Amino acid sequence: MTQQGTLGVAVIGTGRMGADHVRRLDRAVSGARVAAVVDVDGERAERAAAGIGGCAAHTDAAAAMDAPGVDAVLIASPGPAHEAALLEAFARDLPVLCEKPLTPDAASALRVLEAETRLGHRRVQVGFMRRYDAEHLELKALLDAGGLGRALMLHCRHRNVSTPPGYTEQMMINDSVVHEIDSTRWLLGQEITAVTVLKPGGAAAPEHLPQLVLLETAAGVVVDVEIFPACGFGYQVQCEAVGERGTARIGDAHGLSVHTAGRWGGRIAQDFLARFADAYDRQVQCWVDATRRGAVEGPSAWDGYAAAAVCEAGVRAQATGGRVAVDLAARPALYD
Amino acid sequence: MTQQGTLGVAVIGTGRMGADHVRRLDRAVSGARVAAVVDVDGERAERAAAGIGGCAAHTDAAAAMDAPGVDAVLIASPGPAHEAALLEAFARDLPVLCEKPLTPDAASALRVLEAETRLGHRRVQVGFMRRYDAEHLELKALLDAGGLGRALMLHCRHRNVSTPPGYTEQMMINDSVVHEIDSTRWLLGQEITAVTVLKPGGAAAPEHLPQLVLLETAAGVVVDVEIFPACGFGYQVQCEAVGERGTARIGDAHGLSVHTAGRWGGRIAQDFLARFADAYDRQVQCWVDATRRGAVEGPSAWDGYAAAAVCEAGVRAQATGGRVAVDLAARPALYD
Amino acid sequence: MTQQGTLGVAVIGTGRMGADHVRRLDRAVSGARVAAVVDVDGERAERAAAGIGGCAAHTDAAAAMDAPGVDAVLIASPGPAHEAALLEAFARDLPVLCEKPLTPDAASALRVLEAETRLGHRRVQVGFMRRYDAEHLELKALLDAGGLGRALMLHCRHRNVSTPPGYTEQMMINDSVVHEIDSTRWLLGQEITAVTVLKPGGAAAPEHLPQLVLLETAAGVVVDVEIFPACGFGYQVQCEAVGERGTARIGDAHGLSVHTAGRWGGRIAQDFLARFADAYDRQVQCWVDATRRGAVEGPSAWDGYAAAAVCEAGVRAQATGGRVAVDLAARPALYD
Amino acid sequence: MTQQGTLGVAVIGTGRMGADHVRRLDRAVSGARVAAVVDVDGERAERAAAGIGGCAAHTDAAAAMDAPGVDAVLIASPGPAHEAALLEAFARDLPVLCEKPLTPDAASALRVLEAETRLGHRRVQVGFMRRYDAEHLELKALLDAGGLGRALMLHCRHRNVSTPPGYTEQMMINDSVVHEIDSTRWLLGQEITAVTVLKPGGAAAPEHLPQLVLLETAAGVVVDVEIFPACGFGYQVQCEAVGERGTARIGDAHGLSVHTAGRWGGRIAQDFLARFADAYDRQVQCWVDATRRGAVEGPSAWDGYAAAAVCEAGVRAQATGGRVAVDLAARPALYD
Repeated sequence: MTQQGTLGVAVIGTGRMGADHVRRLDRAVSGARVAAVVDVDGERAERAAAGIGGCAAHTDAAAAMDAPGVDAVLIASPGPAHEAALLEAFARDLPVLCEKPLTPDAASALRVLEAETRLGHRRVQVGFMRRYDAEHLELKALLDAGGLGRALMLHCRHRNVSTPPGYTEQMMINDSVVHEIDSTRWLLGQEITAVTVLKPGGAAAPEHLPQLVLLETAAGVVVDVEIFPACGFGYQVQCEAVGERGTARIGDAHGLSVHTAGRWGGRIAQDFLARFADAYDRQVQCWVDATRRGAVEGPSAWDGYAAAAVCEAGVRAQATGGRVAVDLAARPALYD
Repeated sequence: MTQQGTLGVAVIGTGRMGADHVRRLDRAVSGARVAAVVDVDGERAERAAAGIGGCAAHTDAAAAMDAPGVDAVLIASPGPAHEAALLEAFARDLPVLCEKPLTPDAASALRVLEAETRLGHRRVQVGFMRRYDAEHLELKALLDAGGLGRALMLHCRHRNVSTPPGYTEQMMINDSVVHEIDSTRWLLGQEITAVTVLKPGGAAAPEHLPQLVLLETAAGVVVDVEIFPACGFGYQVQCEAVGERGTARIGDAHGLSVHTAGRWGGRIAQDFLARFADAYDRQVQCWVDATRRGAVEGPSAWDGYAAAAVCEAGVRAQATGGRVAVDLAARPALYD
Repeated sequence: MTQQGTLGVAVIGTGRMGADHVRRLDRAVSGARVAAVVDVDGERAERAAAGIGGCAAHTDAAAAMDAPGVDAVLIASPGPAHEAALLEAFARDLPVLCEKPLTPDAASALRVLEAETRLGHRRVQVGFMRRYDAEHLELKALLDAGGLGRALMLHCRHRNVSTPPGYTEQMMINDSVVHEIDSTRWLLGQEITAVTVLKPGGAAAPEHLPQLVLLETAAGVVVDVEIFPACGFGYQVQCEAVGERGTARIGDAHGLSVHTAGRWGGRIAQDFLARFADAYDRQVQCWVDATRRGAVEGPSAWDGYAAAAVCEAGVRAQATGGRVAVDLAARPALYD
Repeated sequence: MTQQGTLGVAVIGTGRMGADHVRRLDRAVSGARVAAVVDVDGERAERAAAGIGGCAAHTDAAAAMDAPGVDAVLIASPGPAHEAALLEAFARDLPVLCEKPLTPDAASALRVLEAETRLGHRRVQVGFMRRYDAEHLELKALLDAGGLGRALMLHCRHRNVSTPPGYTEQMMINDSVVHEIDSTRWLLGQEITAVTVLKPGGAAAPEHLPQLVLLETAAGVVVDVEIFPACGFGYQVQCEAVGERGTARIGDAHGLSVHTAGRWGGRIAQDFLARFADAYDRQVQCWVDATRRGAVEGPSAWDGYAAAAVCEAGVRAQATGGRVAVDLAARPALYD
């Protein structure tokens, strides 16, 4: 496939995220087309493929990867299905954009990491889309340029409107705080070494209440994350970096402000797809562009593994109430 | 050309705006490709075409429109060249996205309008990109939903960092306030009936100083526009709508805020391509999508003509210091 | 009366403003006491005096000024009663804080001015309390220090929740815009030379709708004032100064911001006494302090007269729809 | 002393805070006068008394309390001198406004508490002035009214420009976080039960770097406080309350905003006396008003004692790196 060719993508999983990626590849991103879609629910796969010229529907990921015109794979299936799909892609040396999490736990993430290491070159970009959000990019540029001096603290807020049925306390860490875990590692360029969790209302507090997750990094930066899975009022992601010489804050973004009925203010986004729409578009466009150039960029399998390892420590910290150290494998040279 | 086909676009003019549209069609927008580029400067055209597969460079717009694979035309040449290019496109019944202004004056805009009217169906979308800006869209939705009651006033600010060489007082109206003229008509759904201009510093004030342009609409809305062509500090477009029950403001958008060295605050965009990057992308994507469906949407030749007529009144108001009524032709049924 | 003595004040008028000044002198301001209160409604005067040791109630201003322990006069009666009270105070050479307006029209204000000029020294401070508002003071300091370069425009907003019974169109100018007239003169240090008024909805628009009042100053600064007497949502006073090198804005003051029910934002003050509570306190404290030192400071009778003259032009501009020049008497040397 | 009489105050300590209180009582607050000043440095006491009629300078607190015209005591001496001065005031049954801290440690604070308990009625108001800050009051009103539902978390920021000579790590808790300790107790109406401290940069980090202090309350609210004693850029006190139904934030207060030189924003206060000037005025005015009515209001000796006990736990938490429980004495009925 040359720079000029259109990238044919097999999309694995056509649920909410997968269907949104199908739409994005088909109608918003330049240089790519949806060559195949896969879902264990064959009818759902057919619906996703309908109306897209040259797109076949599959129920088996391996078959889809073998379909003609498939140059790359986007994995948007549930987390437990990721490892198998990643290994199939590795077997065909196909580039992959894998929605987060890389895999649901550190052990399986390590297996993926080792498989890619054996391949000898990077194939995977993990879908930590905040790295493509304009405000996060601006904050990272400021930190990298030393505009605040040495970083000392991050204050993070992560709020969702409500929890879906079946929501568990562990999901606060694995589904939500995993984003702060990645953005901490990315913004600071440091590994996370320990996790502590404080619970308002005590150990038996119901799982829709917020928790305060404390991360410590290798160079001693302290990060506090309020995770509030059912705040009722909107979707908010905020981050304030505190450095030796100043602080910088993102996530207050206020477009339209209204003065009416005794109040000033504006609406709050209700949904991460709305809040991060541009970041998702930019992430996929960057992946398509890099892939067409033959490059692999963005968050790596190591990033996916490290996030999984910190999440495991976080879940243990929730359960024990104490400080839990993070135990990381040695980093292969491939990810230096 | 069917929904599935990729739209082949001939881009007329490869200066700053044209080159940016070439990049956008080639690398950011889905469903389109640059089939031909045209510039009176043949070398510039060659540079714009370089590296785009299947894209030919031309010095003649008509020849480019006849080239194989050209399904549509994007006009980004200087304003005086627009009329001829539009008529060539009409002769071939090609859909056109024409950068603003439609043409440099009301008489020529009226000729274009009449030519399209004779064609019997709309072919032209005019490049008033603010109609695709997220904040402007949110403000329009609020006004249309009656959230502020009946609209009574708009307070607008339009500031540029500096003026280019050769800048004249008339350009304040024709190049800058023309955007407020269109967004006033679009936000309110009303024609503009009169223009007055007040000049700080008096009639002989130099042309880099701001002016206050007052627009009155058919239903009596009063619009004040500060146009400041060389404010020195940044590019700003702000609008506050005042209704019977409240006000709403856009353009204060503050992403990253920094506290350092005794100050809080953030950076101001220096450039309209930065401020309206998303709007330009969305505008072209919408045009490509509609064109592939066989539809013509967005600002029409009538909108281009009406803006030109108001600009002419505005330039007269600058010169006379008095209130100048706007004289509009009857609106053809095609534009109802 | 020495620096150490407490200033005995006769308060003329015990309506809303007067009663508030009685409370302020009695309970919030240092170095003063209410020695007498006056109201044509004797019972209202008695109520105002009740509970204040050594404070007598009067129905006649002259008698109150003659009462023992009266060192100074605060006039808070209706505007038409101001001239007589001022002349009585001049006859006794008593220092006066006179609520705005100095008098209801330019002719009577000129008579007061001439009377004070004959006295040969300043006795009057006019109650333009915005000159004591922290944000206005900060804006003036920035302008005076040249932080924005030469001033070119002011954009002002003045909104009230609702109009009282008997409200007339002229009151927009005389009761409300008079504040912007004074703050324009004070912030810029320039006289106002012309007034124009634009009315959304046309000449017959009802008097609760907003108007756009345009002021021009001696050095060519253009000032636009939105006066909205019944905006329904709150009391707002905002001002943005535009200079050659930047702009500065006050009046967005946001204390507590709340995120709840899908919205961010806060409450808007409903009332000028709430919005300017600190300014009123500071104004009276400064007047008491200066008076105890034997000084007269703050806005002068000339400021009161000039505001009255501009208001008269403004009311004529409302009625005629055209631009009305301001005709000012020569300024006596006393006010240089 | 009756309601009408002026409160004669002896001010103990004429350093920075004391001198400011002398000025405030003399020139800003209604109903009080400085009857005596005390300082171990007799010349400094003389300077503070100069120009205030009827004000004597002393070097001995007891003598000052016995001076004619002294009705009440304001203690602004260094913390270690507070206990003796409080006991002298109790011996004379004089009302006291005591600058924070009540005393430097929990044991001495408990002795003061017991002495006042033996007196049988409250005499002391402790100078936790944030309870008189307009924004803090607004936040408390919102919480008390249930506007956010049950409170779950507070996120606090407390930043100073620089540390004075001789600054120690313990002062972060005793001099600065003591304010958050009091405002947590006051805003939530709950005692603090445990403290943990995290230090960016590790245990040996220098004392100008920020620390993260975590407080837990009786009902399980989690409070995180960033204390940054030498942030370099300004003085900031911010608080965000997180409740079941929303969040509310204070301390972003932005008066004048400026757009110039490519940046928007404003200045940050450099000093607590500037940031809380209104709160200090209101605190002393309320104390004077209550005292003249014969009442004792505001933060009590119990509040002073409880803050001291939490501070002691905080200092231990700094030293140990672990979670330290707060050990409170039983609360006497006097403070219910």
